[in-house]
Amino acid sequence: MNLKSVGTVPRPVQRLIDQLSRLPGIGPKSASRLTFYLLRAADEQTTTLAEALVLLKSDTSFCSICYNIRSSDADPCAVCSDVNRDTTTLCVVEEPLDVMAIERAGMFDGMYHVLHGSISPVDGIGPDDLKLNQLLDRVNSGDVKEVVIATNPNLSGEATAMYIYQQLSGGRVRVTRLARGLPVGGDLEYADEITLVRALEGRQDM
Amino acid sequence: MNLKSVGTVPRPVQRLIDQLSRLPGIGPKSASRLTFYLLRAADEQTTTLAEALVLLKSDTSFCSICYNIRSSDADPCAVCSDVNRDTTTLCVVEEPLDVMAIERAGMFDGMYHVLHGSISPVDGIGPDDLKLNQLLDRVNSGDVKEVVIATNPNLSGEATAMYIYQQLSGGRVRVTRLARGLPVGGDLEYADEITLVRALEGRQDM
Repeated sequence: MNLKSVGTVPRPVQRLIDQLSRLPGIGPKSASRLTFYLLRAADEQTTTLAEALVLLKSDTSFCSICYNIRSSDADPCAVCSDVNRDTTTLCVVEEPLDVMAIERAGMFDGMYHVLHGSISPVDGIGPDDLKLNQLLDRVNSGDVKEVVIATNPNLSGEATAMYIYQQLSGGRVRVTRLARGLPVGGDLEYADEITLVRALEGRQDM
Repeated sequence: MNLKSVGTVPRPVQRLIDQLSRLPGIGPKSASRLTFYLLRAADEQTTTLAEALVLLKSDTSFCSICYNIRSSDADPCAVCSDVNRDTTTLCVVEEPLDVMAIERAGMFDGMYHVLHGSISPVDGIGPDDLKLNQLLDRVNSGDVKEVVIATNPNLSGEATAMYIYQQLSGGRVRVTRLARGLPVGGDLEYADEITLVRALEGRQDM
């Protein structure tokens, strides 16, 4: 037996492996495993998945009010057009995924505003690259009483929160921020120093 | 604020999340992350992926000799039609993915035979459900000198290996098996007892 290079993978198989490998968190090994799983699965599963991928782009758009993802056939989005929600509270998030996470928690019944990113000078992303002016317009023209800033607890999320706070402070709206502290179910021993500092600073009476 | 259920995710988004969640190793959270990643990615990436999914089934088939996956337009497959490979050595594997793994190792230049599963009475899979008769036919009619059994080192893989060995022993072909032992880069302390027993049994002079 001598050394031999690859090239025995059929093109349709290699193509799907390559495409799946481009997705975040999916390496070449997972991509192969998924591809060979689909080869054995019913045709229906592969076609339904392909269809869902195509419709993801063609059937969605951004809400004209909160800039969250919405179905193409309904503007404003389900949240913005829900008359049972509290229009005086506005939760500001970076991404549509964050809206989903907060909705899943099932505790918030106010409105959202999706910035589509965070201020990050090193990446060349300034306030004008985000939906920040739209946020200020909304706050200034509507009946908003509280803006809950729910940007990520990292450097660019903090910078974005500070920017929003500066723009809105002195106005008539209350500006709040999600609490920082120990994650529920987490282990104190594994918490990083900054989280512990925040948890101590924000300690509450029992 | 009162408790509120979800239902704010647009249908095209929820549909893709559901479809991705059906894939092995992808939970609802990863599925959401992938979906929102694709929403932000270029249209080209989504359509290319959808296309690759459709072509995976339409453009592939099984090789009529080794039963590995092949392009629809080329039977026998790239390995079986390669005149530079050693036709006297036949490596028996459970799945097409195993062929890929062995090819990637780049050490084997013989032929393959893909069983498409392993003998597992509890799952109702017997010898006739696999490409075992086709294997015996191939061994008996061809110029095969050695059959390398590369089934998985688990219960059903062992059962399959034993079955093949019984069918072929006493014949003119040599039947071998991939070595069992410590995985390279692994830690002896983390090896399970059976692996250690096999590593000891198969110990070699230095």
